Amino acid sequence: MPPHARMVFKGQIFEVWQWEQVLYDGKTAVFERLRRPDTAIIIPIVDGKILISDEEQPDVAPFMCVPSGRIEAGEDPLEGAKRELLEETGYASDDWELVTEQRPSGKVEWSIFVYIARGCTKVAEQSLDGGEKIASRLVTFDEFLMLADDPEFRSHEIIDMLLRARIDPEKRSALKARLGC
Amino acid sequence: MPPHARMVFKGQIFEVWQWEQVLYDGKTAVFERLRRPDTAIIIPIVDGKILISDEEQPDVAPFMCVPSGRIEAGEDPLEGAKRELLEETGYASDDWELVTEQRPSGKVEWSIFVYIARGCTKVAEQSLDGGEKIASRLVTFDEFLMLADDPEFRSHEIIDMLLRARIDPEKRSALKARLGC
Repeated sequence: MPPHARMVFKGQIFEVWQWEQVLYDGKTAVFERLRRPDTAIIIPIVDGKILISDEEQPDVAPFMCVPSGRIEAGEDPLEGAKRELLEETGYASDDWELVTEQRPSGKVEWSIFVYIARGCTKVAEQSLDGGEKIASRLVTFDEFLMLADDPEFRSHEIIDMLLRARIDPEKRSALKARLGC
Repeated sequence: MPPHARMVFKGQIFEVWQWEQVLYDGKTAVFERLRRPDTAIIIPIVDGKILISDEEQPDVAPFMCVPSGRIEAGEDPLEGAKRELLEETGYASDDWELVTEQRPSGKVEWSIFVYIARGCTKVAEQSLDGGEKIASRLVTFDEFLMLADDPEFRSHEIIDMLLRARIDPEKRSALKARLGC
């Protein structure tokens, strides 16, 4: 956000910021950008398989995804990822790796941190808030790659990675090794 | 947007809407969703090649993309696509096809319409607003598919299509034929 931007609205999730921007022709315009909490996305590995979620929320159609959630204000992204994995699945891991930090939108200050969590073990019961229903299940590495073709798979942030692993045998081997599958 | 949602803020680009949502445990929470103008993305074909843009805007790093822009309030998406192509490149076409309508975010009411414009011809000079600098150039079909690997290529909405054409020879042939390359 430019240093002279100011917050003009603060909602439940989104903040709206605006500033005066000098254009190439010397005129000025009010530019606008949003800020929202960052997101953690987790690819959890259990005995060489990937743990995915069948999820329902009150305002959208049922979908499939990998565990994910909002990072809280002041929370370290990795700590947020650990918390979300534990809450949504009851699983924990001591072997985390950051795969990418994505900034999907030029109009929204928003980072998506994608993690691999190898060697996950069940340590607790699921602990969901009232706004979600999540059932976990395991898929093989090959099934995981093919999820990129399933319209109900909503973890769009990792679809490119799955497709690239299907294009390039070296990337496929590298991803398989990285996941420990 | 649920019918009982109300707009709580209207900015330059984004509107913020909120509503009371009953959760699975019977409690309620304030849910929030944004609305923003839809976007048209155009894959313009000139003599069997794809016209791409090298673009600069005052608040972001230079990038490559295919022509695109905001659809105005009340404007038909195809008319918006024709207008944006003409403004950004000076090219026009009589042979348009809608490829996909994407809704990239669950938290934002926002459609992205992706069009192919075959047989484009130069009919006018570029007509940019003060907030953009755009230089157009042609790439071959093979170069176009490889743009999916270029970090400066920002038309993320079509990267999956390019990758899928590289995975599957049938999809590659179909896309090539569809573009008229």
